[in-house]
Amino acid sequence: MASVTNGRVLFNSIPEGFPEPGKTVVYDTSENIDLDTVPLNGGFLLKTLDLSIDPYMRGRMRAPEKKSYSPPFLLNQPIDGYGVGVVLRSELPEVKAGDHLYGFFKHVQYDVRTNLEGLSKLPNEHGLSWSVYVGAAGMPGKTAYMAWKEYSQAKKGETVFVSAGAGPVGSLVIQFAKADGLKVIGSAGSDEKVQFMKECGADVAFNYKTTNTKEVLEKEGPIDIFWDNVGGETLEAALEAANVNARFIECGMISGYNSGGAPIRNLFHVVSKSISMHGFIVSRLEPKYGKEFYETIPHKLASGELKHREHVFDGLDKVGEALLAVQKGTNKAKAVVKVADE
Amino acid sequence: MASVTNGRVLFNSIPEGFPEPGKTVVYDTSENIDLDTVPLNGGFLLKTLDLSIDPYMRGRMRAPEKKSYSPPFLLNQPIDGYGVGVVLRSELPEVKAGDHLYGFFKHVQYDVRTNLEGLSKLPNEHGLSWSVYVGAAGMPGKTAYMAWKEYSQAKKGETVFVSAGAGPVGSLVIQFAKADGLKVIGSAGSDEKVQFMKECGADVAFNYKTTNTKEVLEKEGPIDIFWDNVGGETLEAALEAANVNARFIECGMISGYNSGGAPIRNLFHVVSKSISMHGFIVSRLEPKYGKEFYETIPHKLASGELKHREHVFDGLDKVGEALLAVQKGTNKAKAVVKVADE
Repeated sequence: MASVTNGRVLFNSIPEGFPEPGKTVVYDTSENIDLDTVPLNGGFLLKTLDLSIDPYMRGRMRAPEKKSYSPPFLLNQPIDGYGVGVVLRSELPEVKAGDHLYGFFKHVQYDVRTNLEGLSKLPNEHGLSWSVYVGAAGMPGKTAYMAWKEYSQAKKGETVFVSAGAGPVGSLVIQFAKADGLKVIGSAGSDEKVQFMKECGADVAFNYKTTNTKEVLEKEGPIDIFWDNVGGETLEAALEAANVNARFIECGMISGYNSGGAPIRNLFHVVSKSISMHGFIVSRLEPKYGKEFYETIPHKLASGELKHREHVFDGLDKVGEALLAVQKGTNKAKAVVKVADE
Repeated sequence: MASVTNGRVLFNSIPEGFPEPGKTVVYDTSENIDLDTVPLNGGFLLKTLDLSIDPYMRGRMRAPEKKSYSPPFLLNQPIDGYGVGVVLRSELPEVKAGDHLYGFFKHVQYDVRTNLEGLSKLPNEHGLSWSVYVGAAGMPGKTAYMAWKEYSQAKKGETVFVSAGAGPVGSLVIQFAKADGLKVIGSAGSDEKVQFMKECGADVAFNYKTTNTKEVLEKEGPIDIFWDNVGGETLEAALEAANVNARFIECGMISGYNSGGAPIRNLFHVVSKSISMHGFIVSRLEPKYGKEFYETIPHKLASGELKHREHVFDGLDKVGEALLAVQKGTNKAKAVVKVADE
C-alpha cells in the first residue's frame, strides 16, 4: 500500500464560550503515512476505530498555564481522549496485529505507539460493538457504576434525582437506582431523551426546557440522592428539594463549562440539611471497582439487561461538530466519532 | 418573697438584614412571678443563669411558613436557645432544688417546666464556670469535637484552613488539628482574634479584613481540610486553594445569613478536585460521640490543656445586642449572656 492521508484533529484556539468547529479544533489532512513501511522502532501501529466525545473535554481547552487536574490540550497538536482501535502491525512482543485496544487515543487516524501506556487490551468476549467500550462499557459506564456504589448509600424506597438522565452516565444511574428499589426522577433536554429515560425505568421523566425543575421536585421529592451532571440552576433546585442527610454525587457541572461557572446561591442547605457532596475522579475508584465492572457490566449490556444508546458522528472530520453538540446537549445520546471500520 | 419581675426577651419582628436590638427582639418586663408560690403542677421552677448566643439563631428569625430544619421563633413569644440554669423548687422526683441543668432554655429569667425534655443534669465535677457548658463544653465544643472526628480524616502533615478560628468552634478545631499534627491556617476579623488563634497554636493566623485570604492560601496551601464557618468569598478562596481529595467540613456560612446567601461561583472544583463536602447537624453525631466528649473535653478545659474564651454580655436585656454582635462578628469570643448569678 502506498502512502495514505493521516487525518488529524488539531487544537487551534482556546474558546471563550462554546467550542466552535473549524476554529477551536481544525481537521488537518496535511500528513501522510505509509502503513506498510512506517518505522515502528519496537512499538506498534494503531488504527483508530472509535473516539469518545465527553463533557469534561471542555476543561482541557484552556491556556496551559491555568492549573487544573486534567492536562490542557496543546495548540497545534492533536487533541486526545478515550478511544478504541486495532493494531495493524507490531514489533512489541505483548501486542499483535488484530489486537483491539482501549484507552487514551490521539485524535488521528493512525498512530505509532511505543508501548501500552494508557492502553489496555479488549478481549470483548461478549461481542459488543467496539464503540460501546468508550461508552456504557467504558469511562462513562465506570463513572456511573463506581460512584453509585461508592457514594449513593442507596436504600430501597428512597428517591433519587438524576440530571442529564439520558446521557451515557445518567441512563445507567437510572437503571442502577431502579435495581436498588429507588424512586427515580430524571431530567433531560428533549422529548426523545425523556422517552429514553422512561425506557430505562425512570418513574418521573421530564424535559427541563419545557417543565420547571423546582416544581417537579417540589411535587415528587424530597430527594435523598442527587446525581449531578449539570450544576447551576438544576443544582440549586436539588438543594431546595433535598431531604435531610441527602447525598449529592457531583459528577459534572456542564451548565457552567462554557460560561466560566454558574453561581450557586443556596449552598447553605448543605449545612442546614446535613448534606454530603462527593466530587470524584473516576480513575481514583478504578482500583476498587475495575475488576467487578468488567465482570458484570459488558455482559449485561450484551444481553440487553442494561440499555444504552449512541449518537454516532461519522468521520474524524466531525470531531469539532461533536464537541459542540456535547457541550450544548444537542447530541441525542452518548457521542461517538466513528473514525473507521475494521 | 413577694412577686418579682420575670424579664423576657420576645421575638418582635422578622429582620430583613441584620437583627436590630429593640426591634427584632424586645426586652419585656411586664410579667411578674412569685418564686415561693408559683404553682409547679408536678414540675419545677428553673432560674436561668447563662444563655448562649450562636450564629445559627439568625435562621430562626424567619416567617413560620418558611421551611427549615430548625423551628422558627414565634412573634411575641420568648426566643429560646442553649442555656444553663439552677432549679429553685421541684415537685418532680428526679429533679431537686440546687440541681444545675443544661439544654434548651426560653430567654426568660424564670420558667416553670413540667419535665426534663430538652434538658440534662450537669454534675460539673471539674468546677468549670457554668457558662462554659454553653460554649467549649457545650454545643459549640461538641460541634468542633464531633465533626472533626467524623469528617476530617486528618493525617499528620496535612494542612487545614479554619475560618472564624477565634470563635468557640474554630478555636477548638485549631487545637484538635495541632494535636493531630497538622499545619493550621486560621482566619478571623480582628487582630485580637488573630492573637488568640496564635495562642491556640495556629501556624499561620491572619485578619481577613486586612489581609487577602486568597493570597495567604496560595502561599501557605494547598489545603487538605477546610473548616467552613463563613461560606461566601472565604469558601470560594478555599475551593481555589484546595488539594485533590480535600475534605470541606461545612459547619456554617455566616457571611450569607443576613443577606439571603452569598453566591459561590467556583463550586466546580468539587468535581475537578474530587472534594467531599460534609454538612452536618451536631445532634446527629451526639449518640456516637456524646459520651467520650463529656469524658474528655470538660477535664481538658478545666486543666487548661484546651484554651477557650468568652465574651460576657451582662443581663438578659443585652440579648438583642449580643445577637447583633454575633452576626456582625464584633463579639470578641464566645458570646454568653449572663442572666443571673447563683
